[in-house]
Amino acid sequence: MGSSLSKTHPDLTISAAGGISSLLMADKITGILTPHMVPLDSRGGIDESELRRYVDWLIDRGVHGLYPNGSTGEFIRFTAEERRRIVQIVCHQAAGRVPVLAGAAEANVRETIAACEAYAGFGARAVAIVSPFYYRLGPESVYAYFREIALASPIDVTLYNIPMFASPIDVPTIQRLAEFERVVGIKDSSGDLAFMMRMIAAVRPSRPEFSFLTGWEAVLVPMLLIGADGGTHATSGVVPELTRMLFDLTAKRDLDQAMKLQYRLLELFDSMLYSADFPEGFRVAVTLRGFAMGDSRQPMSSTQQVDREKLRKVLHCLLADFGYVQPPAEGCPVRRNSEKERELSQIVGGVVEELRRRGVL
Amino acid sequence: MGSSLSKTHPDLTISAAGGISSLLMADKITGILTPHMVPLDSRGGIDESELRRYVDWLIDRGVHGLYPNGSTGEFIRFTAEERRRIVQIVCHQAAGRVPVLAGAAEANVRETIAACEAYAGFGARAVAIVSPFYYRLGPESVYAYFREIALASPIDVTLYNIPMFASPIDVPTIQRLAEFERVVGIKDSSGDLAFMMRMIAAVRPSRPEFSFLTGWEAVLVPMLLIGADGGTHATSGVVPELTRMLFDLTAKRDLDQAMKLQYRLLELFDSMLYSADFPEGFRVAVTLRGFAMGDSRQPMSSTQQVDREKLRKVLHCLLADFGYVQPPAEGCPVRRNSEKERELSQIVGGVVEELRRRGVL
Amino acid sequence: MGSSLSKTHPDLTISAAGGISSLLMADKITGILTPHMVPLDSRGGIDESELRRYVDWLIDRGVHGLYPNGSTGEFIRFTAEERRRIVQIVCHQAAGRVPVLAGAAEANVRETIAACEAYAGFGARAVAIVSPFYYRLGPESVYAYFREIALASPIDVTLYNIPMFASPIDVPTIQRLAEFERVVGIKDSSGDLAFMMRMIAAVRPSRPEFSFLTGWEAVLVPMLLIGADGGTHATSGVVPELTRMLFDLTAKRDLDQAMKLQYRLLELFDSMLYSADFPEGFRVAVTLRGFAMGDSRQPMSSTQQVDREKLRKVLHCLLADFGYVQPPAEGCPVRRNSEKERELSQIVGGVVEELRRRGVL
Amino acid sequence: MGSSLSKTHPDLTISAAGGISSLLMADKITGILTPHMVPLDSRGGIDESELRRYVDWLIDRGVHGLYPNGSTGEFIRFTAEERRRIVQIVCHQAAGRVPVLAGAAEANVRETIAACEAYAGFGARAVAIVSPFYYRLGPESVYAYFREIALASPIDVTLYNIPMFASPIDVPTIQRLAEFERVVGIKDSSGDLAFMMRMIAAVRPSRPEFSFLTGWEAVLVPMLLIGADGGTHATSGVVPELTRMLFDLTAKRDLDQAMKLQYRLLELFDSMLYSADFPEGFRVAVTLRGFAMGDSRQPMSSTQQVDREKLRKVLHCLLADFGYVQPPAEGCPVRRNSEKERELSQIVGGVVEELRRRGVL
Repeated sequence: MGSSLSKTHPDLTISAAGGISSLLMADKITGILTPHMVPLDSRGGIDESELRRYVDWLIDRGVHGLYPNGSTGEFIRFTAEERRRIVQIVCHQAAGRVPVLAGAAEANVRETIAACEAYAGFGARAVAIVSPFYYRLGPESVYAYFREIALASPIDVTLYNIPMFASPIDVPTIQRLAEFERVVGIKDSSGDLAFMMRMIAAVRPSRPEFSFLTGWEAVLVPMLLIGADGGTHATSGVVPELTRMLFDLTAKRDLDQAMKLQYRLLELFDSMLYSADFPEGFRVAVTLRGFAMGDSRQPMSSTQQVDREKLRKVLHCLLADFGYVQPPAEGCPVRRNSEKERELSQIVGGVVEELRRRGVL
Repeated sequence: MGSSLSKTHPDLTISAAGGISSLLMADKITGILTPHMVPLDSRGGIDESELRRYVDWLIDRGVHGLYPNGSTGEFIRFTAEERRRIVQIVCHQAAGRVPVLAGAAEANVRETIAACEAYAGFGARAVAIVSPFYYRLGPESVYAYFREIALASPIDVTLYNIPMFASPIDVPTIQRLAEFERVVGIKDSSGDLAFMMRMIAAVRPSRPEFSFLTGWEAVLVPMLLIGADGGTHATSGVVPELTRMLFDLTAKRDLDQAMKLQYRLLELFDSMLYSADFPEGFRVAVTLRGFAMGDSRQPMSSTQQVDREKLRKVLHCLLADFGYVQPPAEGCPVRRNSEKERELSQIVGGVVEELRRRGVL
Repeated sequence: MGSSLSKTHPDLTISAAGGISSLLMADKITGILTPHMVPLDSRGGIDESELRRYVDWLIDRGVHGLYPNGSTGEFIRFTAEERRRIVQIVCHQAAGRVPVLAGAAEANVRETIAACEAYAGFGARAVAIVSPFYYRLGPESVYAYFREIALASPIDVTLYNIPMFASPIDVPTIQRLAEFERVVGIKDSSGDLAFMMRMIAAVRPSRPEFSFLTGWEAVLVPMLLIGADGGTHATSGVVPELTRMLFDLTAKRDLDQAMKLQYRLLELFDSMLYSADFPEGFRVAVTLRGFAMGDSRQPMSSTQQVDREKLRKVLHCLLADFGYVQPPAEGCPVRRNSEKERELSQIVGGVVEELRRRGVL
Repeated sequence: MGSSLSKTHPDLTISAAGGISSLLMADKITGILTPHMVPLDSRGGIDESELRRYVDWLIDRGVHGLYPNGSTGEFIRFTAEERRRIVQIVCHQAAGRVPVLAGAAEANVRETIAACEAYAGFGARAVAIVSPFYYRLGPESVYAYFREIALASPIDVTLYNIPMFASPIDVPTIQRLAEFERVVGIKDSSGDLAFMMRMIAAVRPSRPEFSFLTGWEAVLVPMLLIGADGGTHATSGVVPELTRMLFDLTAKRDLDQAMKLQYRLLELFDSMLYSADFPEGFRVAVTLRGFAMGDSRQPMSSTQQVDREKLRKVLHCLLADFGYVQPPAEGCPVRRNSEKERELSQIVGGVVEELRRRGVL
């Protein structure tokens, strides 16, 4: 029986080797590309100097690329002119140090193509186009929309699937769109590992350089292990050191350390995501990292302002626990169970050592 | 910065080490426990001898345990008397070779407790109780229901969370229920990795012997990597050799081989799950493995019978491709892209070798 | 233009005239059929004498029929034997005064047919079979299931569509099932008026005696106005006088009074439905009408017991406001805005009178 | 018992009398306000002369108002400048003959307020603001968003609730927003009658002039009967004569005729809505009424173009059946069951007459 499994099954070798093989494909979009927020000044306008400082900071902390005008970047709350200005600033400041994946979805295909042309001119590596939103369109409409963009864009296009906010892009549609050379990747924010595997199994055999990026950092390490090429997610704008480290640890197959950090990232992620309407929790956290992000363009009720202050304290302690910021003057609550956990940790450590000694591991 | 991460963070060590530490906890429920189907005779009754033969076959192929009266076992389509009889047969035939996790949900708490008592008498290791279904109950009702069972059951209880069919059990409720010693584990069929991680983070520090089993084999390997203790899923009743191998490869951290097989399992799983109403596709496949499963108690339309025949052919080829059954006389279609895939596979193989030589891997 | 509309459009005449024409179809199931709860004694068993007293009370207050073993009647929390006993008691007590529509869904088709035979023997008018639940089956499976029952049942069958709890029955499936003479109606609990209209448009032209009953009393009057033949809903077990009055007022086309009461019923319904897991709020209310309903078989947490007491007070005042029960000794809160409302009511009354005088109405 | 019900219950008198009382409130927004599409020229730009001709045609056929930049009007596929131009044209062409309710949602509150100011200048009666979309915001955010607009807008504001596309506005939030004088109504496209009743019960007692408009024409007549003040829906841009007639018949309480037409409207509506991604089916139908609508800005695949042609034929026959357009040269299929239906119609007619004679009706 077993011998049947030792036969090489080509597509799976390829799938699992995605992250590895991609290291030698110079053009492939891989790694952590940060969909960053945009600092606003006291009048609600783009704070250009703070945005440039934030871009430098992210690059210094190891992000592999930048992604302006994503969901985290609140593209929909800016005007068309502002969206262009944001990409221009980011491309200029990045200055080729890292690639820029520019969110280019506009009111319709014509406007989107115009944005693609502009972003190509600014030096973006590729554009990212979210699936049509507001209306929930079916697969044929989604295909027709991206097809027209793929045919007319002067710059590489990545698809952006975020079914909680926009029309879903299903696997057969992705497979059809992968036939266009201009389409070079997909960002998927569903968080569904089996869906990611289905996409990879459908596209990678014929397009090994096609890039699969996850937008659900809660499961970044497992996504990389099943063959995703990288991630583009809000948390990398808060703790770029951590998401980069997760990527590197996974590439080196240091799973124990990677999983430890994945669990800690999940706690931070849940706190930012579920304590306020997205992406407000992330704005609070970026502020804690030392940036003047300004007030959201989405107004807040007085109840929300109180909740935001509570969230700020929680995030402050979480970030201090990582060592990324100084703890608050008033201190942080002791982490639950920590004594017991330490003790158990030692026991488990002993077990692992014993198992290794016996040759089980 | 980086140094802050080298601090030991106890609960994560524990989480990631779940599968490992559990090897030394004699009582912990771990591994692959098969929620098997029940063969029916020509009059629609339980085919006892075929069921016994199936139990032996599963044990011989390495399953770590058996799980009668699960969703795959169509517990709801049997009468209360039949459900008891099924557990009795399975416990008797297993004869202590592997533990039996017996599905014991009945019409109400009183009837469920009576079943628990009977199954304890038959020698089951524990019972599995699905969350209340039909009505969609809130967390307080779910808690109250399991609490009453936990207080009265003479046998260990595992919770069964399957939100697509039954009232969801959320993380705080799981945490509250884990305070009862009688509650020793949870099977989760949501397929959501982040949810599994949240459960583990909430319960494992205080209950290291609490068992986390995934019911979503599409992502079995990733689930084990993030710390799940095992799986209980329909596919293990079809290809028990494969699911056992996935478990063992993951325990040994042979991820390349594990992932390859995980991709192939996904293809088989999708074919069985999405080509017919659950669990009909699995019945077809078990029949192909050589068991006389009989006709479903859920009637089929003539259209469905035609579809079933098509599915049978697809599954026959998939199982033959694994080497588990002889290919059909009429042959199987050549797998798409296989030439190109083989070529790519060689390229990738070369890349990996090169990277290893350079010391990158 | 207008003249084109004066052409007779037959199916619509029929549709709108549903409730009316049905008065002359002796066998058609029409009116309010109460899916009643079952009183439990102190040991959790069926309280037969209280159930008989409740049946009498409901008939005395004008319900057109009784519906044991519905969702309100918690059929799933009783054993198969208890379900039979309930139907037997209800048929015996009704003694032909009103028709009995007996819930007969059992573990599988064979068991269901056996129940149908038994209920025919008890004198039930028809059985009601809920669509397959737990598993979410597709249209072909739903069709095949009901087809087999329709072919074998010795008693008329009504379908029961409750998509929030069971596999949905879509319009084409209903149309196919309406080809079986044994299938004589459908209860729909979706609450979707357009869906009800689609069913009526699809079936009534060829089966004018087919009965359409709504299970969503929140919109009972509008459902009757678009052609439904009646309703079968939990609230009729609490305030049978009111639901009967709504039916009669609508039949007489006294819409002003019917709508007034529909609004008040909605307030009562929302209080019972959304303040506790279904059907607990209805149990509280039936208790307030003077029946010893006992404790639910679904256990309650201590938090829920406190909530239940609060709900009891709210419902007591609502029922007292209708004049159905004496107000509580401690009194009820003054209804918000009542002064202003009274004033506005007078203004509106004047407007209507004025419009009538001018001939606008 | 009955006597308790004869007590005047003020808020219900008001609720049911909504449509009536509103006739004497000069400023209240009532009736059918058409969310019209925008004709595009061969280059995809706004076809101003055709838009003006369409506006005239709609007013001539009795619509009570116009609603540019709604979902039907594809506001999201136009640029901010185009949206302004559309409102300007429509206000200018309407020239005070009917009120204009201008869709004014822009990228953020500041841009939205600027649009409100412009539309006030153009002479719009009020603006309609869809709830925040793309992100799914919670009630507090929805409240804060509309609150800021209500405080700053120089023109009356109506809320637009369309939960399938945008963040839902729940009843408590509507109640809170109704405290702002600037907020004068809500359009609800959920199609849920009970939800409409809950809104009316919550707001009408304190704000009798607040307008409730349904966006779900499938149930227009029932919505008017439970107290809605009017409707604003895509179908009124296709058959304005029909939707106006439904409104008038309901106001006159000619329910038999109103229901007949409601059933026919449902058939037309379903054909337009479910045969293509919204609002493409409506564009096809408006073209059939004689307007050069141009091609959608959302591209179509070749499969969709074939489907569109089929839909065109179906809609042509449906519109010809109403007498609104000439039948196609190739003829239309005979309507199913029509013979039998006619026969049944006569029977039912006889029944009704008989019942009237007996005094039952």
